[in-house]
Amino acid sequence: MGKCLFRNEVNSVRPYVPGKPVEELKRELGLEDIEKLASNENPLGPSPKAIEAIRKEAEYINIYPESNATKVKEKLAEKYNLSVDNIVTGNGGEELLKLIAETFINSGDEAIMADTTFDKYASEVSFMGGTAVKLPLKNYKHDFEGFIGTINDNTKLIFICNPNNPTGNIATKDELDSFVKNVPEDVVIVLDEAYYDYAVMNPEYPDSLEILKKRPNTIILRTFSKVAGIAAVRIGYLLTSKEIADAMNKIRLVFSVNRLAQAAALGALEDTEHIQKTVELNYKSLGLMEEYFNKRSFEYIKSNANFIFVNIGEDSRVVFNELLKKGIIIRPGYLWGWDSWLRISTGTIEQTQKFVDKLDEVLNELCKNELSLA
Amino acid sequence: MGKCLFRNEVNSVRPYVPGKPVEELKRELGLEDIEKLASNENPLGPSPKAIEAIRKEAEYINIYPESNATKVKEKLAEKYNLSVDNIVTGNGGEELLKLIAETFINSGDEAIMADTTFDKYASEVSFMGGTAVKLPLKNYKHDFEGFIGTINDNTKLIFICNPNNPTGNIATKDELDSFVKNVPEDVVIVLDEAYYDYAVMNPEYPDSLEILKKRPNTIILRTFSKVAGIAAVRIGYLLTSKEIADAMNKIRLVFSVNRLAQAAALGALEDTEHIQKTVELNYKSLGLMEEYFNKRSFEYIKSNANFIFVNIGEDSRVVFNELLKKGIIIRPGYLWGWDSWLRISTGTIEQTQKFVDKLDEVLNELCKNELSLA
Repeated sequence: MGKCLFRNEVNSVRPYVPGKPVEELKRELGLEDIEKLASNENPLGPSPKAIEAIRKEAEYINIYPESNATKVKEKLAEKYNLSVDNIVTGNGGEELLKLIAETFINSGDEAIMADTTFDKYASEVSFMGGTAVKLPLKNYKHDFEGFIGTINDNTKLIFICNPNNPTGNIATKDELDSFVKNVPEDVVIVLDEAYYDYAVMNPEYPDSLEILKKRPNTIILRTFSKVAGIAAVRIGYLLTSKEIADAMNKIRLVFSVNRLAQAAALGALEDTEHIQKTVELNYKSLGLMEEYFNKRSFEYIKSNANFIFVNIGEDSRVVFNELLKKGIIIRPGYLWGWDSWLRISTGTIEQTQKFVDKLDEVLNELCKNELSLA
Repeated sequence: MGKCLFRNEVNSVRPYVPGKPVEELKRELGLEDIEKLASNENPLGPSPKAIEAIRKEAEYINIYPESNATKVKEKLAEKYNLSVDNIVTGNGGEELLKLIAETFINSGDEAIMADTTFDKYASEVSFMGGTAVKLPLKNYKHDFEGFIGTINDNTKLIFICNPNNPTGNIATKDELDSFVKNVPEDVVIVLDEAYYDYAVMNPEYPDSLEILKKRPNTIILRTFSKVAGIAAVRIGYLLTSKEIADAMNKIRLVFSVNRLAQAAALGALEDTEHIQKTVELNYKSLGLMEEYFNKRSFEYIKSNANFIFVNIGEDSRVVFNELLKKGIIIRPGYLWGWDSWLRISTGTIEQTQKFVDKLDEVLNELCKNELSLA
């Protein structure tokens, strides 16, 4: 063919690697008992009110979803003391990140973000012809000083994942406030708070709605996938100025949020009990892992999310594969270029204990092999 | 602000107007009995097997969906005698149309389509910086001769909606075959067959899989939203060459098709009985409407879809609003620039009869008013 078949940006996309599904591992290794602690899913299961709402709504699925997810937005507006005009819903946070790039990024525009953070920021910006400017973490945290020095006339977006993924730690209120003061008004700050409900337990966690009130070019991203436990139905939302929300609502897919996701979100919003239990369990699971890491003197990053990032001092590819054989799926650090680190999602107490035991076995086995090779 | 906040293409987007939701009309007019014949939804309801599948799957919604919708693709591959590598799934046909533009359209590229056809082709192409080249229908059909004359070095895509929306009629096998022969190999032909199961009852309907076999740069788009009656869960798919499917699977959202949609689609694929009943009812409903249109000597276009396009010789804005007051929602032709036409989705026999009766009332009332004004 004479001309290039695909759009220019298609060739440069590096596909995202999702956590290994349990079914796949069962097929591959013939294992029965598998614990997946790789995708930051809710170990308590979905909100029971969400399940109930879905079962009721199932008989109406011949009718297209309500395009504006009005009822969900009304509940969220009430919860956050905002107008429905400040809210945009999407097919999970993933689609909203895509929508952000589609709304702001012309070819040649720049977006600043940490290296390392959630992969999707860079890939969506690049896909729209923009440049992802990545600044290394400093003491495992966003290098806000570096961010300020990097802002130029082409800077359209700044992404801040808070808590950060995969590190799990937060930018504090003080850190964020003094950073935001120095960002020009016309640069849009995206605060990805997918793990908000876990992080808000930390009194130093920022109040991003206060930032939005002072600075309209701010976007706060939240989701029902984590603490509400309805990742599979796909619904996320963002809070922003009316001007930005209007633009996004004009260009987004008409039927992006399916009917069952809307019903499930309404159920989950009522279910404060489930959220409370989930958050409690989360910190117990983190505590159990920290205890083990301390015992082995592993370096880990203090987490306010539903996962923890730890340096086990061994090749994460090897440890990942050895854990797979023992029926444990985690996320190996090499995916982000952190070769000796693991990211482990929190689980039930039983799951967490099983992970700790199996990791211990793997590390002891590796240790023996190294000795016998020596 | 010095620079423009939004991406260049954002401002030129004309928002899509979905069919009016029943709930909205209930609120606005205080009506109880409302029939919506505006969005080509399945009047028999969802496939019962799809409902059952959703209720079972609901308890697992804390687990992210399987990214590749593997089981759905395996069933489809078997059904069409293709490989799973020829299939791409999406969050409804709508997302797949967006994905098509994202895959092929660089700024300055052209896509050829009918004027009038499904709005989304033009809007998605424009949104990626391409030009939608629209050729008027000829005798209410795609002007394939005109299409051929319009192809140039910038032509990347040709969209053919078959049956066409909103006209409901088909391009026949002979028409399509002789057209395709004259399209250069490097132009991608998109055959949107959202209404396939209704249209295939017409022996003149083309076998698009045969076209794909001969010509890799072909995309066939189908959906579970219409005949399977699961529009609300959002799942559509496309069949194409492995090369194109690979590119699309690389750039698409990782979790675009939610877990319940995958379960529902598997249920619906088994439910041939529901599809058969739906198609039978469809042609009965069309027959009932045709009978009335014939009686009133209205011009209408012979439909092989689940809607019909008719020229009622009155302002469609007025008739639409009068029908709303009587609890009937249809789609007025002015939305497409066909000011005296209506597009009516098929319904149950009762719904269809109610539409015919209410339309008759409206037209008689309009007639009287005109006489009394004269």
